[in-house]
Amino acid sequence: MNQQQAAQDWFCELRDRICAAFEELEDALTGPFNDMPPARFTRKTWDRDAAHDGDLSGGGGVMSIMHGRVFEKVGVNISAVHGVFSPEFRTKIPGAEEDGKYWAAGISLVAHMRNPLVPSVHMNTRHIVTTKSWFGGGMDLTPSILFEEDNAHFHGTLKNICDRFDPEYHAKFQKWCAEYFFLPHRNEERGIGGIFYDYIDSGDWEKDFAFTKDVGAGFLDAFIPLVQRRMNLDFTPEDKEKQLIKRGRYAEFNLLYDRGTTFGLKTGGNVEAILMSLPPEARWP
Amino acid sequence: MNQQQAAQDWFCELRDRICAAFEELEDALTGPFNDMPPARFTRKTWDRDAAHDGDLSGGGGVMSIMHGRVFEKVGVNISAVHGVFSPEFRTKIPGAEEDGKYWAAGISLVAHMRNPLVPSVHMNTRHIVTTKSWFGGGMDLTPSILFEEDNAHFHGTLKNICDRFDPEYHAKFQKWCAEYFFLPHRNEERGIGGIFYDYIDSGDWEKDFAFTKDVGAGFLDAFIPLVQRRMNLDFTPEDKEKQLIKRGRYAEFNLLYDRGTTFGLKTGGNVEAILMSLPPEARWP
Repeated sequence: MNQQQAAQDWFCELRDRICAAFEELEDALTGPFNDMPPARFTRKTWDRDAAHDGDLSGGGGVMSIMHGRVFEKVGVNISAVHGVFSPEFRTKIPGAEEDGKYWAAGISLVAHMRNPLVPSVHMNTRHIVTTKSWFGGGMDLTPSILFEEDNAHFHGTLKNICDRFDPEYHAKFQKWCAEYFFLPHRNEERGIGGIFYDYIDSGDWEKDFAFTKDVGAGFLDAFIPLVQRRMNLDFTPEDKEKQLIKRGRYAEFNLLYDRGTTFGLKTGGNVEAILMSLPPEARWP
Repeated sequence: MNQQQAAQDWFCELRDRICAAFEELEDALTGPFNDMPPARFTRKTWDRDAAHDGDLSGGGGVMSIMHGRVFEKVGVNISAVHGVFSPEFRTKIPGAEEDGKYWAAGISLVAHMRNPLVPSVHMNTRHIVTTKSWFGGGMDLTPSILFEEDNAHFHGTLKNICDRFDPEYHAKFQKWCAEYFFLPHRNEERGIGGIFYDYIDSGDWEKDFAFTKDVGAGFLDAFIPLVQRRMNLDFTPEDKEKQLIKRGRYAEFNLLYDRGTTFGLKTGGNVEAILMSLPPEARWP
């Protein structure tokens, strides 16, 4: 329980740090859209609807959402839920085979940016406990216009984090990410990838937790400089159109393939929190 | 083969009638957007990629698409394909159990309108032949702002068509439509419904074909008056916002639940033709 509380506290702390950093960016804008006021996050709590998983389920979450001049739409969700998996799910979740009990907490973030030269970004990390316990998460970038410098900074930052823990992590988790965020019907990746990991249980809980903390904190190092570098640049209507089309592909991925989205919607998850990832505006011309 | 050719010819003829009627509406506009030029359909043919279903598959289709001042984006697809279902699909398709052979032709249409007071519309009819043969199809309306008069006209027209063939058809097919075009995660219907039918094989092919022809021709009677009645009306920015949000729900339905979309994308259908149904612009604010 101390471990679970520690993980949950960290996700809260990380949420606070991210929201503060994003609000600073709202204040710092001098380029396009600076006639709009800098925005602030608003929070909304939700309680788990126990009806879907039986009497033992519960918990809930807090959505932090901001519609700003740098962040056209950004959602940062934290949640901590527990319950009992239905018999059909038990065989699919490690350690849930016997009694189906689970506890899960995490943070999940998707940001769609107003300036099309700033990439969209997604990050989430989570801790799950059944009779086993593990960490999962990752982050990935979806530019509509690619700057090689941004690409190198994002992947380089993630590699540095991974290398501090295991020399094999980065290559493995980058590959996992590229395979996961892929649209088979378009034969294209959703963006330029990043890292994705799951079922991390090295036997050293403190080390695994430290990795997930470093991934979370490292998100700011990986992403904030890209926003600072691009948010004040002028862009063309063609740049915006490219972004809106790329966002259409993003919506396609999330609704057609994303496990969190399709699983969540089909098992009675919080619809508003799950669909917060969808872009504020998208085009399929 | 005469029956199959007759069905295929009809879908072509219906496509021509619909495209002509829609182009007339482009010409007739006097209200908002009349500073834009009236648009015309362009056509694009595609050939089936035989690789997905083995050597015997083939056929193709023709997409007709128009980006206009009344029709912001409209696609009218006809196709005729044949092949052999893989063993796993054979048990799911009537009459395909033994050798898996099938032939299918149809017409499919989705229109997203520029004026938010004109509803979006979807129509498709098809003829499928295995060792059995049947017709399927239907149409449904998705207004973002509902006019009771339009609702009554649309459903009334469909009821008249159905009643000429079987007094039980309309109630049955309207219910089927409402159940099919439903977003469980939102607990709401996609629009105001219409009719949806499948596996129509009364034993009288000529009668079943006549029903599908009347549904197709009746689409123009059901929909054109609504466009004429609403397309010249002024609307507010709030009306447009409502439309864009409703279109987001439309994209959600098609990508999460629509059988044609998810089945088509996962079995190597023509991606451009399948995703022509997605709205030109949508919002998730």
